Amino acid sequence: MKRTTTFVPTERTTLKRLPKRASYERNTIYQILDEGFLCHVGFTVDGQPVVIPTAYGRAEDTLYIHGSVASRMLRTLADGIQVCVTVTLVDGLVLARSAFHHSMNYRSVVVFGTASAVEDAIEKARALLTFSEHVIPGRWAEVREPNEDELKKTLVLRIPLTEASAKIRSGPPIDEETDYGLRVWAGELPLSLVAGDPVADSRLLPGIEAPAYIRTVRIQSAAAAIR
Amino acid sequence: MKRTTTFVPTERTTLKRLPKRASYERNTIYQILDEGFLCHVGFTVDGQPVVIPTAYGRAEDTLYIHGSVASRMLRTLADGIQVCVTVTLVDGLVLARSAFHHSMNYRSVVVFGTASAVEDAIEKARALLTFSEHVIPGRWAEVREPNEDELKKTLVLRIPLTEASAKIRSGPPIDEETDYGLRVWAGELPLSLVAGDPVADSRLLPGIEAPAYIRTVRIQSAAAAIR
Repeated sequence: MKRTTTFVPTERTTLKRLPKRASYERNTIYQILDEGFLCHVGFTVDGQPVVIPTAYGRAEDTLYIHGSVASRMLRTLADGIQVCVTVTLVDGLVLARSAFHHSMNYRSVVVFGTASAVEDAIEKARALLTFSEHVIPGRWAEVREPNEDELKKTLVLRIPLTEASAKIRSGPPIDEETDYGLRVWAGELPLSLVAGDPVADSRLLPGIEAPAYIRTVRIQSAAAAIR
Repeated sequence: MKRTTTFVPTERTTLKRLPKRASYERNTIYQILDEGFLCHVGFTVDGQPVVIPTAYGRAEDTLYIHGSVASRMLRTLADGIQVCVTVTLVDGLVLARSAFHHSMNYRSVVVFGTASAVEDAIEKARALLTFSEHVIPGRWAEVREPNEDELKKTLVLRIPLTEASAKIRSGPPIDEETDYGLRVWAGELPLSLVAGDPVADSRLLPGIEAPAYIRTVRIQSAAAAIR
Protein backbone atom coordinates (compact mmCIF):
# COMPACT_ATOMS: atom_id res chain seq x y z
CA MET A 1 0.00 0.00 0.00
CA LYS A 2 1.28 3.45 -0.82
CA ARG A 3 2.38 5.37 2.25
CA THR A 4 0.96 8.87 2.39
CA THR A 5 1.64 11.80 4.71
CA THR A 6 -2.08 12.00 5.37
CA PHE A 7 -4.31 9.12 6.32
CA VAL A 8 -7.25 8.81 3.97
CA PRO A 9 -10.34 9.46 6.10
CA THR A 10 -12.69 6.48 6.04
CA GLU A 11 -16.31 6.11 7.04
CA ARG A 12 -15.23 5.16 10.55
CA THR A 13 -12.38 7.62 11.04
CA THR A 14 -14.23 10.65 9.71
CA LEU A 15 -15.28 12.92 12.54
CA LYS A 16 -18.88 13.91 12.09
CA ARG A 17 -19.13 15.97 15.23
CA LEU A 18 -16.80 19.00 15.53
CA PRO A 19 -14.85 18.06 12.39
CA LYS A 20 -12.51 21.02 12.85
CA ARG A 21 -10.95 19.16 15.77
CA ALA A 22 -9.94 16.31 13.48
CA SER A 23 -6.55 15.63 11.93
CA TYR A 24 -5.51 12.90 9.53
CA GLU A 25 -1.88 14.02 9.26
CA ARG A 26 0.54 11.19 9.85
CA ASN A 27 3.02 13.49 11.65
CA THR A 28 0.38 14.80 14.05
CA ILE A 29 -0.91 11.32 14.75
CA TYR A 30 2.56 9.90 15.32
CA GLN A 31 3.55 12.75 17.65
CA ILE A 32 0.58 11.89 19.85
CA LEU A 33 1.33 8.16 19.69
CA ASP A 34 4.98 8.81 20.53
CA GLU A 35 4.19 11.02 23.51
CA GLY A 36 1.83 8.48 25.05
CA PHE A 37 2.57 4.93 26.15
CA LEU A 38 -0.81 3.70 27.38
CA CYS A 39 -3.57 2.76 24.98
CA HIS A 40 -7.05 1.33 25.37
CA VAL A 41 -7.63 -1.60 23.05
CA GLY A 42 -11.18 -2.41 22.10
CA PHE A 43 -12.23 -5.72 20.60
CA THR A 44 -15.35 -7.79 20.42
CA VAL A 45 -15.84 -11.12 22.15
CA ASP A 46 -19.10 -12.90 21.29
CA GLY A 47 -20.62 -9.57 20.27
CA GLN A 48 -19.62 -7.91 23.54
CA PRO A 49 -17.21 -4.96 23.38
CA VAL A 50 -14.19 -5.27 25.70
CA VAL A 51 -11.76 -2.43 26.43
CA ILE A 52 -8.41 -3.21 28.03
CA PRO A 53 -5.64 -0.77 28.95
CA THR A 54 -2.13 -1.73 27.92
CA ALA A 55 1.20 -0.18 27.02
CA TYR A 56 2.29 0.08 23.41
CA GLY A 57 5.21 1.00 21.21
CA ARG A 58 5.41 2.35 17.68
CA ALA A 59 7.99 1.50 15.02
CA GLU A 60 7.52 3.09 11.62
CA ASP A 61 3.96 2.38 10.53
CA THR A 62 3.26 -0.35 13.06
CA LEU A 63 1.91 -0.29 16.58
CA TYR A 64 3.00 -3.10 18.89
CA ILE A 65 1.17 -4.22 21.99
CA HIS A 66 1.60 -7.11 24.38
CA GLY A 67 0.71 -8.00 27.92
CA SER A 68 -2.59 -8.50 29.65
CA VAL A 69 -4.55 -8.19 26.46
CA ALA A 70 -3.13 -11.51 25.47
CA SER A 71 -5.32 -13.91 27.34
CA ARG A 72 -8.67 -12.59 26.17
CA MET A 73 -7.53 -11.81 22.67
CA LEU A 74 -5.86 -15.18 22.17
CA ARG A 75 -9.23 -16.91 21.82
CA THR A 76 -10.07 -15.12 18.64
CA LEU A 77 -6.59 -14.31 17.43
CA ALA A 78 -6.05 -17.13 14.99
CA ASP A 79 -6.89 -15.17 11.86
CA GLY A 80 -6.41 -11.73 13.34
CA ILE A 81 -9.13 -9.77 15.08
CA GLN A 82 -10.52 -6.32 14.45
CA VAL A 83 -9.39 -3.84 17.05
CA CYS A 84 -9.77 -0.18 17.84
CA VAL A 85 -6.77 1.27 19.65
CA THR A 86 -7.30 4.63 21.33
CA VAL A 87 -4.60 6.81 22.91
CA THR A 88 -5.67 9.86 24.91
CA LEU A 89 -3.44 12.58 26.32
CA VAL A 90 -5.33 14.85 28.73
CA ASP A 91 -3.97 18.40 28.60
CA GLY A 92 -6.40 20.26 30.80
CA LEU A 93 -9.86 21.03 32.05
CA VAL A 94 -11.65 23.88 30.31
CA LEU A 95 -13.83 25.97 32.60
CA ALA A 96 -16.46 28.04 30.85
CA ARG A 97 -18.92 30.54 32.30
CA SER A 98 -21.83 28.23 31.54
CA ALA A 99 -22.07 24.60 32.60
CA PHE A 100 -22.84 23.67 29.01
CA HIS A 101 -19.56 24.91 27.53
CA HIS A 102 -17.22 23.16 29.94
CA SER A 103 -14.81 20.96 28.09
CA MET A 104 -11.47 19.23 28.18
CA ASN A 105 -8.28 19.92 26.29
CA TYR A 106 -6.86 16.70 24.95
CA ARG A 107 -5.15 15.00 22.06
CA SER A 108 -6.44 11.59 21.12
CA VAL A 109 -5.77 9.10 18.37
CA VAL A 110 -8.07 6.34 17.21
CA VAL A 111 -6.59 3.52 15.14
CA PHE A 112 -8.69 0.89 13.41
CA GLY A 113 -7.07 -2.27 12.20
CA THR A 114 -6.52 -5.93 12.49
CA ALA A 115 -4.24 -7.21 15.20
CA SER A 116 -2.12 -10.22 14.43
CA ALA A 117 0.49 -12.14 16.35
CA VAL A 118 4.16 -11.56 15.59
CA GLU A 119 5.49 -15.07 15.02
CA ASP A 120 8.87 -14.40 13.47
CA ALA A 121 11.55 -14.55 16.19
CA ILE A 122 13.55 -11.64 14.79
CA GLU A 123 10.55 -9.35 14.37
CA LYS A 124 9.39 -10.33 17.84
CA ALA A 125 12.73 -9.46 19.45
CA ARG A 126 12.80 -6.18 17.54
CA ALA A 127 9.22 -5.40 18.55
CA LEU A 128 10.04 -5.92 22.22
CA LEU A 129 13.03 -3.60 21.89
CA THR A 130 10.81 -1.02 20.18
CA PHE A 131 8.26 -1.40 22.91
CA SER A 132 10.82 -0.94 25.68
CA GLU A 133 12.52 2.03 24.02
CA HIS A 134 9.13 3.66 23.42
CA VAL A 135 8.28 3.64 27.12
CA ILE A 136 11.74 4.10 28.65
CA PRO A 137 14.38 5.10 26.08
CA GLY A 138 17.77 3.79 27.12
CA ARG A 139 16.51 0.97 29.31
CA TRP A 140 16.94 -1.96 26.95
CA ALA A 141 20.75 -1.71 26.76
CA GLU A 142 21.01 -2.21 30.50
CA VAL A 143 18.65 -5.03 31.38
CA ARG A 144 18.84 -8.76 30.88
CA GLU A 145 17.33 -9.50 27.49
CA PRO A 146 14.51 -12.02 27.21
CA ASN A 147 15.63 -15.63 26.99
CA GLU A 148 14.03 -18.18 24.68
CA ASP A 149 11.50 -19.29 27.28
CA GLU A 150 10.44 -15.72 28.04
CA LEU A 151 10.10 -14.94 24.34
CA LYS A 152 7.81 -17.94 23.97
CA LYS A 153 5.64 -16.75 26.85
CA THR A 154 5.30 -13.28 25.37
CA LEU A 155 2.59 -12.62 22.87
CA VAL A 156 3.33 -9.59 20.72
CA LEU A 157 0.61 -8.17 18.52
CA ARG A 158 1.14 -5.97 15.52
CA ILE A 159 -1.40 -3.41 14.31
CA PRO A 160 -0.56 -1.72 11.01
CA LEU A 161 -1.11 2.04 11.04
CA THR A 162 -3.20 2.41 7.92
CA GLU A 163 -6.48 3.82 9.22
CA ALA A 164 -6.21 6.45 11.93
CA SER A 165 -7.38 9.87 12.97
CA ALA A 166 -6.53 12.37 15.67
CA LYS A 167 -8.84 14.64 17.60
CA ILE A 168 -7.44 17.67 19.32
CA ARG A 169 -8.93 20.39 21.47
CA SER A 170 -6.79 23.16 22.87
CA GLY A 171 -7.19 26.70 24.05
CA PRO A 172 -9.67 28.65 26.16
CA PRO A 173 -13.38 28.04 26.70
CA ILE A 174 -15.77 29.26 24.02
CA ASP A 175 -18.71 30.84 25.78
CA GLU A 176 -21.99 32.24 24.53
CA GLU A 177 -21.46 35.90 23.70
CA THR A 178 -24.04 36.91 26.32
CA ASP A 179 -22.17 34.99 29.03
CA TYR A 180 -18.87 36.86 28.73
CA GLY A 181 -20.34 39.53 31.03
CA LEU A 182 -20.85 37.02 33.89
CA ARG A 183 -18.60 37.43 36.89
CA VAL A 184 -17.49 33.80 36.78
CA TRP A 185 -13.86 32.72 36.56
CA ALA A 186 -13.15 31.01 33.26
CA GLY A 187 -10.03 29.55 31.76
CA GLU A 188 -7.99 26.40 31.58
CA LEU A 189 -6.57 24.18 34.30
CA PRO A 190 -3.57 22.46 32.68
CA LEU A 191 -3.03 18.81 33.59
CA SER A 192 0.13 16.82 33.02
CA LEU A 193 1.35 13.34 33.73
CA VAL A 194 4.60 13.83 35.61
CA ALA A 195 7.23 11.51 37.02
CA GLY A 196 8.10 11.64 40.71
CA ASP A 197 11.31 10.56 42.40
CA PRO A 198 12.33 7.01 41.54
CA VAL A 199 11.77 4.48 44.33
CA ALA A 200 14.61 1.96 44.49
CA ASP A 201 13.73 -1.70 44.94
CA SER A 202 14.51 -2.85 48.49
CA ARG A 203 16.68 -5.64 47.11
CA LEU A 204 18.80 -3.32 44.98
CA LEU A 205 22.51 -4.06 45.32
CA PRO A 206 24.42 -1.28 47.09
CA GLY A 207 26.06 1.43 45.02
CA ILE A 208 23.66 1.40 42.07
CA GLU A 209 22.28 4.85 41.29
CA ALA A 210 19.05 5.51 39.43
CA PRO A 211 20.05 5.87 35.78
CA ALA A 212 19.91 9.26 34.08
CA TYR A 213 17.49 8.03 31.39
CA ILE A 214 14.62 7.57 33.81
CA ARG A 215 14.78 11.29 34.54
CA THR A 216 13.94 11.90 30.92
CA VAL A 217 11.07 9.43 30.68
CA ARG A 218 8.48 10.75 28.29
CA ILE A 219 6.02 12.90 30.17
CA GLN A 220 2.71 14.04 28.83
CA SER A 221 2.05 17.69 29.23
CA ALA A 222 0.20 20.51 27.62
CA ALA A 223 3.55 22.23 27.10
CA ALA A 224 4.45 19.60 24.55
CA ALA A 225 1.09 19.88 22.84
CA ILE A 226 0.71 20.43 19.15
CA ARG A 227 -0.87 23.85 18.90
CA MET B 1 -31.64 -6.21 42.11
CA LYS B 2 -30.05 -6.67 45.51
CA ARG B 3 -27.12 -4.35 46.10
CA THR B 4 -24.06 -6.15 47.43
CA THR B 5 -20.74 -4.88 48.76
CA THR B 6 -19.00 -7.16 46.30
CA PHE B 7 -19.78 -7.45 42.62
CA VAL B 8 -20.52 -11.00 41.62
CA PRO B 9 -17.76 -12.01 39.21
CA THR B 10 -19.20 -13.01 35.84
CA GLU B 11 -17.70 -14.84 32.91
CA ARG B 12 -16.55 -11.56 31.41
CA THR B 13 -15.37 -9.79 34.58
CA THR B 14 -13.43 -12.73 35.97
CA LEU B 15 -9.72 -12.17 35.55
CA LYS B 16 -8.16 -15.29 34.13
CA ARG B 17 -4.64 -13.93 33.96
CA LEU B 18 -3.02 -12.81 37.23
CA PRO B 19 -6.25 -13.24 39.23
CA LYS B 20 -4.56 -12.00 42.42
CA ARG B 21 -4.59 -8.51 40.90
CA ALA B 22 -8.38 -8.57 40.67
CA SER B 23 -10.89 -6.99 43.01
CA TYR B 24 -14.66 -7.15 42.93
CA GLU B 25 -15.20 -4.98 46.03
CA ARG B 26 -17.64 -2.16 45.43
CA ASN B 27 -15.64 0.23 47.67
CA THR B 28 -12.39 -0.43 45.85
CA ILE B 29 -14.02 -0.05 42.46
CA TYR B 30 -15.83 3.16 43.45
CA GLN B 31 -12.63 4.70 44.88
CA ILE B 32 -10.95 4.21 41.52
CA LEU B 33 -13.97 5.54 39.62
CA ASP B 34 -14.15 8.57 41.94
CA GLU B 35 -10.47 9.39 41.58
CA GLY B 36 -10.59 9.32 37.78
CA PHE B 37 -12.69 11.42 35.46
CA LEU B 38 -11.75 10.10 32.01
CA CYS B 39 -13.04 6.79 30.76
CA HIS B 40 -12.71 4.89 27.51
CA VAL B 41 -16.08 3.68 26.25
CA GLY B 42 -16.12 0.70 23.95
CA PHE B 43 -19.10 -0.22 21.81
CA THR B 44 -19.71 -2.09 18.60
CA VAL B 45 -20.88 -0.49 15.36
CA ASP B 46 -21.65 -2.94 12.57
CA GLY B 47 -19.42 -5.52 14.23
CA GLN B 48 -16.51 -3.08 14.51
CA PRO B 49 -15.25 -2.18 18.00
CA VAL B 50 -14.99 1.57 18.64
CA VAL B 51 -13.26 3.09 21.67
CA ILE B 52 -13.90 6.74 22.54
CA PRO B 53 -12.45 8.75 25.43
CA THR B 54 -14.89 10.83 27.42
CA ALA B 55 -15.41 12.27 30.89
CA TYR B 56 -17.80 10.62 33.33
CA GLY B 57 -19.43 11.07 36.71
CA ARG B 58 -20.71 8.60 39.26
CA ALA B 59 -23.77 8.92 41.47
CA GLU B 60 -24.56 5.98 43.70
CA ASP B 61 -24.63 2.89 41.52
CA THR B 62 -24.81 4.70 38.20
CA LEU B 63 -22.15 6.00 35.85
CA TYR B 64 -23.10 8.98 33.68
CA ILE B 65 -21.39 9.95 30.46
CA HIS B 66 -22.14 12.53 27.80
CA GLY B 67 -20.33 14.40 25.08
CA SER B 68 -18.56 13.26 22.00
CA VAL B 69 -19.71 9.68 22.39
CA ALA B 70 -23.18 10.88 21.52
CA SER B 71 -23.05 11.10 17.77
CA ARG B 72 -21.77 7.62 17.08
CA MET B 73 -23.74 5.98 19.82
CA LEU B 74 -26.99 7.67 18.87
CA ARG B 75 -27.39 5.44 15.81
CA THR B 76 -27.83 2.33 17.86
CA LEU B 77 -29.08 3.85 21.09
CA ALA B 78 -32.79 3.33 20.66
CA ASP B 79 -33.00 0.17 22.76
CA GLY B 80 -29.77 0.68 24.68
CA ILE B 81 -26.43 -0.61 23.51
CA GLN B 82 -23.88 -2.85 25.17
CA VAL B 83 -20.85 -0.95 26.35
CA CYS B 84 -17.60 -1.60 28.14
CA VAL B 85 -16.38 1.37 30.15
CA THR B 86 -12.76 1.28 31.28
CA VAL B 87 -11.06 3.70 33.66
CA THR B 88 -7.30 3.50 34.10
CA LEU B 89 -5.16 5.36 36.63
CA VAL B 90 -1.47 5.02 35.88
CA ASP B 91 0.58 5.05 39.09
CA GLY B 92 4.05 4.27 37.84
CA LEU B 93 6.47 2.41 35.65
CA VAL B 94 8.01 -0.70 37.16
CA LEU B 95 11.62 -1.30 36.16
CA ALA B 96 12.85 -4.83 36.65
CA ARG B 97 16.31 -6.27 36.13
CA SER B 98 15.12 -8.29 33.14
CA ALA B 99 13.23 -6.86 30.17
CA PHE B 100 10.58 -9.55 30.67
CA HIS B 101 9.52 -8.45 34.15
CA HIS B 102 9.02 -4.78 33.41
CA SER B 103 5.54 -3.70 34.28
CA MET B 104 3.31 -0.81 35.17
CA ASN B 105 1.61 0.08 38.44
CA TYR B 106 -1.97 1.00 37.80
CA ARG B 107 -5.53 0.76 39.03
CA SER B 108 -8.16 0.06 36.43
CA VAL B 109 -11.87 -0.65 36.43
CA VAL B 110 -13.83 -2.38 33.71
CA VAL B 111 -17.61 -1.98 33.70
CA PHE B 112 -19.92 -3.98 31.46
CA GLY B 113 -23.45 -2.82 30.94
CA THR B 114 -26.09 -1.35 28.75
CA ALA B 115 -26.05 2.37 28.14
CA SER B 116 -29.35 4.13 27.84
CA ALA B 117 -30.37 7.73 27.36
CA VAL B 118 -31.58 9.74 30.33
CA GLU B 119 -34.88 11.17 29.10
CA ASP B 120 -36.44 12.44 32.30
CA ALA B 121 -35.70 16.17 32.68
CA ILE B 122 -35.11 15.99 36.42
CA GLU B 123 -32.77 12.99 36.26
CA LYS B 124 -30.97 14.65 33.36
CA ALA B 125 -30.39 17.88 35.28
CA ARG B 126 -29.26 15.89 38.31
CA ALA B 127 -26.94 13.79 36.17
CA LEU B 128 -25.29 16.89 34.74
CA LEU B 129 -24.77 18.26 38.23
CA THR B 130 -23.28 14.92 39.30
CA PHE B 131 -21.06 14.95 36.27
CA SER B 132 -19.82 18.47 36.95
CA GLU B 133 -19.25 17.88 40.65
CA HIS B 134 -17.38 14.67 39.89
CA VAL B 135 -14.82 16.47 37.73
CA ILE B 136 -14.64 19.85 39.50
CA PRO B 137 -16.35 19.82 42.91
CA GLY B 138 -17.75 23.27 43.69
CA ARG B 139 -18.00 24.47 40.12
CA TRP B 140 -21.72 23.95 39.51
CA ALA B 141 -22.86 26.50 42.11
CA GLU B 142 -20.98 29.25 40.31
CA VAL B 143 -21.71 28.81 36.62
CA ARG B 144 -24.77 29.55 34.53
CA GLU B 145 -26.90 26.43 34.60
CA PRO B 146 -28.00 24.83 31.33
CA ASN B 147 -31.10 26.38 29.75
CA GLU B 148 -33.83 24.36 28.12
CA ASP B 149 -32.23 24.51 24.69
CA GLU B 150 -28.85 23.35 26.02
CA LEU B 151 -30.47 20.51 27.95
CA LYS B 152 -32.13 19.37 24.74
CA LYS B 153 -28.79 19.38 22.91
CA THR B 154 -27.13 17.33 25.62
CA LEU B 155 -27.34 13.60 25.48
CA VAL B 156 -26.74 11.99 28.85
CA LEU B 157 -26.21 8.25 29.06
CA ARG B 158 -26.64 6.14 32.14
CA ILE B 159 -24.75 2.91 32.76
CA PRO B 160 -25.85 0.96 35.84
CA LEU B 161 -22.96 -0.34 37.94
CA THR B 162 -23.96 -3.97 38.25
CA GLU B 163 -21.09 -5.81 36.57
CA ALA B 164 -17.61 -4.51 37.25
CA SER B 165 -14.14 -5.49 38.30
CA ALA B 166 -10.94 -3.73 39.26
CA LYS B 167 -7.39 -4.68 38.46
CA ILE B 168 -4.58 -3.30 40.55
CA ARG B 169 -0.83 -3.65 40.44
CA SER B 170 1.35 -1.87 42.96
CA GLY B 171 4.75 -2.27 44.51
CA PRO B 172 8.23 -3.16 43.32
CA PRO B 173 9.31 -5.32 40.39
CA ILE B 174 9.26 -9.07 40.87
CA ASP B 175 12.43 -10.44 39.32
CA GLU B 176 13.69 -13.93 38.74
CA GLU B 177 15.64 -15.00 41.81
CA THR B 178 18.81 -15.39 39.73
CA ASP B 179 18.50 -11.82 38.45
CA TYR B 180 18.64 -10.10 41.83
CA GLY B 181 22.42 -10.30 41.66
CA LEU B 182 22.58 -8.21 38.48
CA ARG B 183 24.02 -4.73 38.81
CA VAL B 184 20.99 -3.11 37.17
CA TRP B 185 18.92 -0.38 38.82
CA ALA B 186 15.43 -1.61 39.60
CA GLY B 187 12.45 0.02 41.22
CA GLU B 188 9.44 2.15 40.51
CA LEU B 189 9.10 5.48 38.75
CA PRO B 190 5.90 6.99 40.18
CA LEU B 191 3.67 8.86 37.75
CA SER B 192 0.88 11.27 38.65
CA LEU B 193 -1.57 13.44 36.83
CA VAL B 194 -1.08 16.88 38.34
CA ALA B 195 -2.71 20.25 37.83
CA GLY B 196 -0.61 23.24 36.83
CA ASP B 197 -1.35 26.92 37.39
CA PRO B 198 -4.76 27.97 36.09
CA VAL B 199 -4.68 30.00 32.88
CA ALA B 200 -7.29 32.75 32.93
CA ASP B 201 -9.38 33.31 29.80
CA SER B 202 -8.23 36.46 27.99
CA ARG B 203 -11.79 37.80 28.11
CA LEU B 204 -12.11 37.37 31.87
CA LEU B 205 -13.61 40.44 33.54
CA PRO B 206 -11.12 42.29 35.76
CA GLY B 207 -10.99 41.46 39.43
CA ILE B 208 -12.06 37.81 39.24
CA GLU B 209 -9.63 35.48 40.98
CA ALA B 210 -9.29 31.79 40.20
CA PRO B 211 -11.60 30.03 42.67
CA ALA B 212 -10.18 27.98 45.52
CA TYR B 213 -11.95 24.80 44.42
CA ILE B 214 -9.88 24.42 41.27
CA ARG B 215 -6.80 24.10 43.47
CA THR B 216 -8.36 20.99 44.91
CA VAL B 217 -9.38 19.38 41.62
CA ARG B 218 -9.08 15.65 41.94
CA ILE B 219 -5.63 14.60 40.96
CA GLN B 220 -4.56 11.08 40.23
CA SER B 221 -1.47 9.99 42.01
CA ALA B 222 0.18 6.96 43.42
CA ALA B 223 -0.01 8.63 46.82
CA ALA B 224 -3.77 8.21 46.79
CA ALA B 225 -3.50 4.61 45.65
CA ILE B 226 -5.18 1.77 47.45
CA ARG B 227 -2.32 -0.27 48.79
